[in-house]
Amino acid sequence: MNIELIGIDGLPEIAPGADLGDLIVARVAAMGHSFSSSHVLVVTQKIVSKAEGRIVPLSSVEPSPFAALWAKTLHLDARLVELALRESRRIVRMDRGVLITETHHGFVCANAGVDVSNVSGGQTATLLPIDADASARALRAAIAARTGAEMAVVISDTFGRPWREGLVNIALGTAGIEPLHSFVGSTDPHGFSLQATVQAVADEVAAAAGLVSSKLSRTPVVLIKGLTYQRGMGTGRDLLRAPERDLFR
Amino acid sequence: MNIELIGIDGLPEIAPGADLGDLIVARVAAMGHSFSSSHVLVVTQKIVSKAEGRIVPLSSVEPSPFAALWAKTLHLDARLVELALRESRRIVRMDRGVLITETHHGFVCANAGVDVSNVSGGQTATLLPIDADASARALRAAIAARTGAEMAVVISDTFGRPWREGLVNIALGTAGIEPLHSFVGSTDPHGFSLQATVQAVADEVAAAAGLVSSKLSRTPVVLIKGLTYQRGMGTGRDLLRAPERDLFR
Repeated sequence: MNIELIGIDGLPEIAPGADLGDLIVARVAAMGHSFSSSHVLVVTQKIVSKAEGRIVPLSSVEPSPFAALWAKTLHLDARLVELALRESRRIVRMDRGVLITETHHGFVCANAGVDVSNVSGGQTATLLPIDADASARALRAAIAARTGAEMAVVISDTFGRPWREGLVNIALGTAGIEPLHSFVGSTDPHGFSLQATVQAVADEVAAAAGLVSSKLSRTPVVLIKGLTYQRGMGTGRDLLRAPERDLFR
Repeated sequence: MNIELIGIDGLPEIAPGADLGDLIVARVAAMGHSFSSSHVLVVTQKIVSKAEGRIVPLSSVEPSPFAALWAKTLHLDARLVELALRESRRIVRMDRGVLITETHHGFVCANAGVDVSNVSGGQTATLLPIDADASARALRAAIAARTGAEMAVVISDTFGRPWREGLVNIALGTAGIEPLHSFVGSTDPHGFSLQATVQAVADEVAAAAGLVSSKLSRTPVVLIKGLTYQRGMGTGRDLLRAPERDLFR
């Protein structure tokens, strides 16, 4: 299997209310690429959040005393801490300059996904989409309506991980692709019946696209051609480990 | 930026002592691909471990009483638990059918990376390479000696993660590529000076290749063309978070 990752750049600055489907279809077409139901489109959370109006001017945020206290301890902006707490249902760790929470969606990540990069020079924060799976489904439907191609869509974001340095892109939301591919019960080429292998395909798709759409690249969309993937109704939520199965809460 | 991921299949079964460099060069050439210092080669741990003789017949393993006790509790093969303990310097979690340890190298993963898939129908286990960075450097040198191309080499393995379901491929060892790309101090396209963004490029490279070289694909090598990456002397060890920076030990 050969796979191509194609950076889709040249999109305009995305404002609240922007029609992402229209803009992406226009840009993919202008770059001379075809539309096919076998393709996968990876879109960074940042432009999805902007289009959905999930942006907050920091000047409008009044930190609570708790946020102000912890911002001092963690050496973070108190308004960012305030937004992160509002976006969270549980604090996982607050220590050594790091605030890791579980968002209302169930994502475990730094600052609840609240981020000021690539918005407005640090004066505005983006929040994660309210429902990134719904965002992915809407984008998939919009692209299908305009082109006839039912592409898989993955909304990606950049997360840290325990134990390992550096950030990788993961799948926040998906549409038209099963995010997990189970090999359990399959027999490997050496005759062994696989017992525990479940591949996080959507996370690997997001990570692959991350190589193209890094922070400075102005390339928030990646078109993937040639990937054989399982179609299905699975969502980004399937990638969240249930609390009772999680040994690191 | 456009990136191509090319699956290199058709390699023979790898036996201890096999010359991986020779075999990969021959196969890449036979498939009609060129050699270039701008390429990245991703090789799964499994064939590296086999070539380096890091394989153990399970029939040769005598479990300790501790391994036998915990194998029963975890519903795992006692010989596998024994091997995992031998490969480990610290137990991170043993609970709910999962044994997560820190290997002597510092990797935190299930069963210390000991695995019976894709070897011999479940009767033989592979251990992680003793030094996957050295494996990567040797492979890079072997390919350069034969082709003149100084490709980056990443040795990958399939790891689970806290908080998220499913496995993804990560970089165990690297040569010729900086595994971490720091954007700290860079200014994003909106004028914000990035403060904490360090991208785990080698892990994203491994994850991308994982889309091509999944468990049943008989494709243990992936050639990546078109990726702009930082050359350097960084190693897979750089991706391991230092204990004092790790909030999830």
